[in-house]
Amino acid sequence: MEADILITDTLLLPDPGNSTLIPSGCVAVHGEKIIYAGPMEHYNDRQAKRILDGRGMLTMPGLVNLHGHAPMTLFRGLADDLELADWLSNHIFPAETDHVNPEMVYWCSTLAAAEMILSGTTTTADGYFLETEVAHAFADAGLRAVVAQGIIDFPAPGVPDPKDNIEKAASFLDAWQGKNPLIKPALFAHSPYTCANTTLQKAKQLARRYNVQLYIHVAETEHEISMIQKPLGRTPIQHLQALGILDADTVCVHCVWADGRDMEILAGQGSPVVLCPQSNLKLVSGMADLPLMLAKGVRVGLGTDGCASNNSLDMFREMDVSAKVQKLHKLDPVAVPAKTILAMATTDGASISGFPGHAGVLAAGRPADIILLDVQQPHLAPFYTPDLLVYAASGADVRTVIINGRPVLEQGRLLSININKTLDRVRTMAIAVQ
Amino acid sequence: MEADILITDTLLLPDPGNSTLIPSGCVAVHGEKIIYAGPMEHYNDRQAKRILDGRGMLTMPGLVNLHGHAPMTLFRGLADDLELADWLSNHIFPAETDHVNPEMVYWCSTLAAAEMILSGTTTTADGYFLETEVAHAFADAGLRAVVAQGIIDFPAPGVPDPKDNIEKAASFLDAWQGKNPLIKPALFAHSPYTCANTTLQKAKQLARRYNVQLYIHVAETEHEISMIQKPLGRTPIQHLQALGILDADTVCVHCVWADGRDMEILAGQGSPVVLCPQSNLKLVSGMADLPLMLAKGVRVGLGTDGCASNNSLDMFREMDVSAKVQKLHKLDPVAVPAKTILAMATTDGASISGFPGHAGVLAAGRPADIILLDVQQPHLAPFYTPDLLVYAASGADVRTVIINGRPVLEQGRLLSININKTLDRVRTMAIAVQ
Repeated sequence: MEADILITDTLLLPDPGNSTLIPSGCVAVHGEKIIYAGPMEHYNDRQAKRILDGRGMLTMPGLVNLHGHAPMTLFRGLADDLELADWLSNHIFPAETDHVNPEMVYWCSTLAAAEMILSGTTTTADGYFLETEVAHAFADAGLRAVVAQGIIDFPAPGVPDPKDNIEKAASFLDAWQGKNPLIKPALFAHSPYTCANTTLQKAKQLARRYNVQLYIHVAETEHEISMIQKPLGRTPIQHLQALGILDADTVCVHCVWADGRDMEILAGQGSPVVLCPQSNLKLVSGMADLPLMLAKGVRVGLGTDGCASNNSLDMFREMDVSAKVQKLHKLDPVAVPAKTILAMATTDGASISGFPGHAGVLAAGRPADIILLDVQQPHLAPFYTPDLLVYAASGADVRTVIINGRPVLEQGRLLSININKTLDRVRTMAIAVQ
Repeated sequence: MEADILITDTLLLPDPGNSTLIPSGCVAVHGEKIIYAGPMEHYNDRQAKRILDGRGMLTMPGLVNLHGHAPMTLFRGLADDLELADWLSNHIFPAETDHVNPEMVYWCSTLAAAEMILSGTTTTADGYFLETEVAHAFADAGLRAVVAQGIIDFPAPGVPDPKDNIEKAASFLDAWQGKNPLIKPALFAHSPYTCANTTLQKAKQLARRYNVQLYIHVAETEHEISMIQKPLGRTPIQHLQALGILDADTVCVHCVWADGRDMEILAGQGSPVVLCPQSNLKLVSGMADLPLMLAKGVRVGLGTDGCASNNSLDMFREMDVSAKVQKLHKLDPVAVPAKTILAMATTDGASISGFPGHAGVLAAGRPADIILLDVQQPHLAPFYTPDLLVYAASGADVRTVIINGRPVLEQGRLLSININKTLDRVRTMAIAVQ
């Protein structure tokens, strides 16, 4: 079978969780899938419609950013150095009330897609309102994405009356279910402290009816713990469990304050967790106990959170901070080694995202989500092990990105997004925000 | 006076500690100095030998990286995820014994200079052995640098017998004192636990005789505290004070475990502190109490440490991690705002580095150490405030670097370093290390 794309003579990292580098590797892509990834000498068919010279490049699976609020690029850096409650109530919610509309959501999500593609993210999971516009933006950008319509018991963009939140979410699922192989619709219940019990249960019921994932912010701050635990006598995660909401399709975001018993519940239900350590640092939410989570058997992925609380969507940066902060947090330099973090951002993240066959590895039969990094730069020399991808690389090292067999970035040039038009549109909106 | 270089129509941040942006600014350079920095409309003389178009660029003072071990680029990523004692004794010291020689020091320091220039550092302070080769490398690269010859009571590269360590250091000062305006020689006593009291005192005596700075690792780990405090009944910083070593020219690196009284001593003596939070996280050393340090009146700068314990020399990354980690460490999102971190990496760092007139600002009469960043990229849009330089920018955004009036990087191209030759030499050495 002739390849559509053949990446030749590259430093190949087919499975980031196991650290094995193939010095002279190649990757062949046919249609949406990889048909070969391994040593170049074992691949005999050198014919291909397009050959990408991989010399000087490290080729690896694209990164998976499991939590974001793409339209919030408009609020990047608008309100820094504040606590979560102050930041949300006095800055972000008012800005959202004034400035979020379908056009804003489309263009600001396109900007987020550009930033993610440029920094090597090929799969993301997003949660916001007017999510149909996020889905359009990501579909146009060629990004693989779980797009989750927001549900909250407050007036929200596109859902002025909260009693319509489930119905609006159902319409969203109807519109996007099965429409585009790269866009997987889902639901995003904001949190146990902003959604009533019945809302949470209806959201989960709807998710089950459509067989889609439910994402939820949970156990993010100590304040949330006291808000839930004081009246109910149970932790937020126990609360979700009691409501019957936890299963393998409920993705719990943050879980900073999950204790050992909470983790056992999550592991028992197979509910994945997404950690966003940079956002948790910046908003002073706290730091999750990642080694304990892994020891308890919880499936864990990484996310940047929205770039208003980070302020970057660069997953390389998130990996670096995750690894370093956990070392000091646990007073153990080996508790979370670099390769564990790399696995969270690729294989584990891909598995949690739930796209059929998507495993975050470069192997025959897998979807062709591939990134190439320029490793000939001073800050990546010498290159002894892939640990350097965590501790020294950055999103700016990414040169070429292929998603589902389609090149979307080549030699640093975005192919699927008109970036000048996007920047113009977002900047015009930003003038009104300031 | 005709300018040699005129940067036109740029987004100007003349003093990073005060956050004021000038939307259409210009900077004029004559010889080694800035002759104008401010709004373009107030600068009438538009003639210049060279004009740099600053449109789409943010122009700011170059960053100051106050602690590094440049030759250790050879050991970048050689031994990750280890504790300081294990990392030093079982990995780094043996590798140094086998692989450090004058040629290695020159080329690996050139690599470090390239990485620093590419990521916007214009001034650095380095401490290592065979430091004369570091000085040659930095002088050739056109980097402004304090270069400090190492002093330790163990056999070291170039100083096989520790009883020669002061004499070798004196020869180094003789060789470099007053030789090159960009190279300021100094001494680097490794630590209070690797240098005897008499060694520390002789080192400080020598530094005073030559009127140069003395850098020293101190209060880096809890283990060091117990090593010094158990037998002596005083903290490492009290110990240095008792030995008469602390004054405004003794720069204390790390100070992770400095307590309130230690900080008062440092403030009282005017001894500056350099924090290296990424290295402290990665080696699980601990985290300094930066807000308390600042409240006590200590002068504080930032450094990356050697890239074997980081593993990056990108000061933008160091700023981001510094700001975020302090927030959670102090449970206070405003204790160390972004602009304080920016000041530490520019104005405060420049003042600590001690070059005459060097203030880390863009203003008439100041040395022309200037960097230009491309702020037209998706991850920097919108650009509401300079906080984004801390929370979203990275070294890869730097396009042009001028040090002491000399362009050393233009449009991403290194002018003062043959980077291909440098990479070749370092890679050849790395093969022997692996």
